[in-house]
Amino acid sequence: MAKTIDINSDLGESFGAWRMGDDAALLAIVSSANIACGFHGGDPDIMRGTVALAVQHDVAIGAHVSLPDLQGFGRREMAVTPNEAYALTLYQIGALHGFAQAAGTRLRHVKPHGALYNMAARDAALASAIACAVRDFDPSLRLFGLANSALIDAGIAIGIPVAAEAFADRRYRADGSLQPRREPDAVIQESDEAIAQAMAMAREGQVCAVDGSVITLQADTLCVHGDGSHAVAFARQLRAALEAADIGIAPPHATGKRA
Amino acid sequence: MAKTIDINSDLGESFGAWRMGDDAALLAIVSSANIACGFHGGDPDIMRGTVALAVQHDVAIGAHVSLPDLQGFGRREMAVTPNEAYALTLYQIGALHGFAQAAGTRLRHVKPHGALYNMAARDAALASAIACAVRDFDPSLRLFGLANSALIDAGIAIGIPVAAEAFADRRYRADGSLQPRREPDAVIQESDEAIAQAMAMAREGQVCAVDGSVITLQADTLCVHGDGSHAVAFARQLRAALEAADIGIAPPHATGKRA
Amino acid sequence: MAKTIDINSDLGESFGAWRMGDDAALLAIVSSANIACGFHGGDPDIMRGTVALAVQHDVAIGAHVSLPDLQGFGRREMAVTPNEAYALTLYQIGALHGFAQAAGTRLRHVKPHGALYNMAARDAALASAIACAVRDFDPSLRLFGLANSALIDAGIAIGIPVAAEAFADRRYRADGSLQPRREPDAVIQESDEAIAQAMAMAREGQVCAVDGSVITLQADTLCVHGDGSHAVAFARQLRAALEAADIGIAPPHATGKRA
Amino acid sequence: MAKTIDINSDLGESFGAWRMGDDAALLAIVSSANIACGFHGGDPDIMRGTVALAVQHDVAIGAHVSLPDLQGFGRREMAVTPNEAYALTLYQIGALHGFAQAAGTRLRHVKPHGALYNMAARDAALASAIACAVRDFDPSLRLFGLANSALIDAGIAIGIPVAAEAFADRRYRADGSLQPRREPDAVIQESDEAIAQAMAMAREGQVCAVDGSVITLQADTLCVHGDGSHAVAFARQLRAALEAADIGIAPPHATGKRA
Repeated sequence: MAKTIDINSDLGESFGAWRMGDDAALLAIVSSANIACGFHGGDPDIMRGTVALAVQHDVAIGAHVSLPDLQGFGRREMAVTPNEAYALTLYQIGALHGFAQAAGTRLRHVKPHGALYNMAARDAALASAIACAVRDFDPSLRLFGLANSALIDAGIAIGIPVAAEAFADRRYRADGSLQPRREPDAVIQESDEAIAQAMAMAREGQVCAVDGSVITLQADTLCVHGDGSHAVAFARQLRAALEAADIGIAPPHATGKRA
Repeated sequence: MAKTIDINSDLGESFGAWRMGDDAALLAIVSSANIACGFHGGDPDIMRGTVALAVQHDVAIGAHVSLPDLQGFGRREMAVTPNEAYALTLYQIGALHGFAQAAGTRLRHVKPHGALYNMAARDAALASAIACAVRDFDPSLRLFGLANSALIDAGIAIGIPVAAEAFADRRYRADGSLQPRREPDAVIQESDEAIAQAMAMAREGQVCAVDGSVITLQADTLCVHGDGSHAVAFARQLRAALEAADIGIAPPHATGKRA
Repeated sequence: MAKTIDINSDLGESFGAWRMGDDAALLAIVSSANIACGFHGGDPDIMRGTVALAVQHDVAIGAHVSLPDLQGFGRREMAVTPNEAYALTLYQIGALHGFAQAAGTRLRHVKPHGALYNMAARDAALASAIACAVRDFDPSLRLFGLANSALIDAGIAIGIPVAAEAFADRRYRADGSLQPRREPDAVIQESDEAIAQAMAMAREGQVCAVDGSVITLQADTLCVHGDGSHAVAFARQLRAALEAADIGIAPPHATGKRA
Repeated sequence: MAKTIDINSDLGESFGAWRMGDDAALLAIVSSANIACGFHGGDPDIMRGTVALAVQHDVAIGAHVSLPDLQGFGRREMAVTPNEAYALTLYQIGALHGFAQAAGTRLRHVKPHGALYNMAARDAALASAIACAVRDFDPSLRLFGLANSALIDAGIAIGIPVAAEAFADRRYRADGSLQPRREPDAVIQESDEAIAQAMAMAREGQVCAVDGSVITLQADTLCVHGDGSHAVAFARQLRAALEAADIGIAPPHATGKRA
């Protein structure tokens, strides 16, 4: 069976009169769309439009759930309890489900956003609360989380499908975690090097860590960004490279990964 | 077949650290709970708790959808377009559905709140947008609206079940509309008179208008309020009077009214 | 004494991670900056930065006060009471004053934004409440409002300085009011025609109404927009035309207009 | 010269339709009111009313500045940067100043609320940012903070007046910090013991720590709570005990403490 991988992107992050990202361009490239649900971006009108656009491009829809911090774009960590995380996850999944339902489609996945993503990657109780919310809404929904994180562990433990997310342009440490952004070499600047890293992830499930060691990294989905024309160009380049290597681009639910 | 009527109340209107209403007392009396969805009251934690309480009391759950105005408690009219009304209705229905789904139950109805309720009672385009959102989410959901209003008309026109709401303690005009609150006799102050009006509504589908004429008023559901100990006492008195007259108290979906 | 006029623009309308407008370009052109105060745009960080930028360009600072509607960008009318309008105006003036004070400067004017501007142009009670808030904060603050509006009347009645605002690119009716936007000829599309209208306003205090009559219009300040590169180009063209005609560009407080 | 101490309380924490606390009862007891500024409680209408009530009771007014978290009542820590803390402090001070100015009075102090208070007690950079905002608005404003905290140190370092806050009903550790709430003996349950602790603080500037040692604790202001009838009764009892011991109750600015 041919290899496949998912490409996901964060979309629908406009709010009210403010625009963000080139959603239409990205929807022509990715296989999964993480749609903002009003807590860090997105509002009911934006969500409706983004769902319609994703349906039009036949891209799988997921809820991009966030801490309630519009001004901080969900990027500032907040001391929410697991119970609060459970409830805000359920609220946002439900809200996006409303638009999917009205559009005659369905949600396929849930991915925490920003600070909630980072917190859930390392905090088992928070991760478990988020995974529970996903399962309690629909146990066939897939949880997207950082590869080798507490969130992926929580999803597996609770029995829902997961997708381990990897980054073409971030460097990894020998333990499989991301090199923190405060380190000078956290981000890969060269497109070619990032493409090469993504190809190694997709083909061999391997990545070369900052210390030079080659580590195993399950990469079910690759994240591409939408800010700036370069980002869209890189996403296109990544897709072309994967296709040239006969790696199919498809959302995890379509290929049954870790279902 | 015995007569039945629904009693509904607005619940889950606390927010964060602030409490409002005696939800537990009312849930022992009413058959339908209109639960706030975060736009005028309610937050994810409150919604989760209110759904759990309603399930425990076996009370039918509905989404109490509002304009986005937390400070004004959804009571200030806002010039939203029909498209905006459609999207905010869908968002809030979906959000509450998340908690119903996780609790193993389902939504039974949708009722606009405050200013949105009043605007939808007289504005056909807005009413139609709200009715469309309900139908597009789930055509078996019932739309609650003011008896003889544009909202009830919109629900019927679009083919979804409706429930005409009547008020025990508000006076009606000869055309079936409510006597506006700015009129001195808009509200019935005496409990006994309010009970008598509710009984005439429930038994004969009739109400005595302010000009003395007796008019026909379809009353599928009676609204009771939760603020103040007197309000809870009145709700109890109303339920007792209905039961004494052999009128069953049940949510509309259970009795098939206007399905 | 030479003729002078003010050019104002709405600035600081970014919010959180979202950008809006080319503030730096406009600050090189205008003499008064209406700075968003967090209710329709702007947040504490944006406000701080915008005040600093305005100080750097030696542009007069004013509070651009709005209805509390971030999603609707303050453009949706809301049924606020005069008391609510008073309090939200005072709150926003104070908030912006905080940044002006810390930057070693002071506020010079207050201009209602969007729907509040339109409501205050026609509703005398609302207009009076806003004028009172300005006076109660600082009776030397100038109130900006639509020429020939209830807001200008309210400011004059209460004894605070006012500035009548006129639009280069909007058509006027014979009674001095704006041709409503729903009319096909509401907006002047040709730059040259708009410049000509602005010049007639600035030089003779006159404008040619849609019915062909020439009417008197006190224009203390001309509003220019910041969205789109064309808008900035037009603002530059307008400034150049005024300067070529020996009309000085200065904020009203500097020239003592209607003080 | 006779001993004096300040009693402060958190007031104006209602929001929109929701009520919180018995402000009128507390204003008859305290000498300083920390008024919520819209970020954790309070809205423009509530702020206006609370300022009016404080003026009527001749109680000193201060801004109770918070993280932007209405749902969490400002009690959830958020990873704000010092720059963000500076700007949100300035915004809220300014907003409250608007109402003080219109009421013909002035602010006397600033006290961070909830999570921001706790973060500023231990994080020197955050503390310094808040102290800078206070100074940049008005260097005669007094900064209220936990006794022996980074916040008090920051205020002193920057040259503004400070008031060290102490708690009658919380136990202290030998280093002068509060016994954390997770410890079983963090709160003093007996009124008499709490009164005794407050009297020792007010008279001798001493407190008996949990390990039995007697430590020096500068207590310029004692905090009393307003939730529950017991809280108001305790505040009354505390005031009576201080007066019986000939200790005056007055805001710090009136007695020149650490000015």
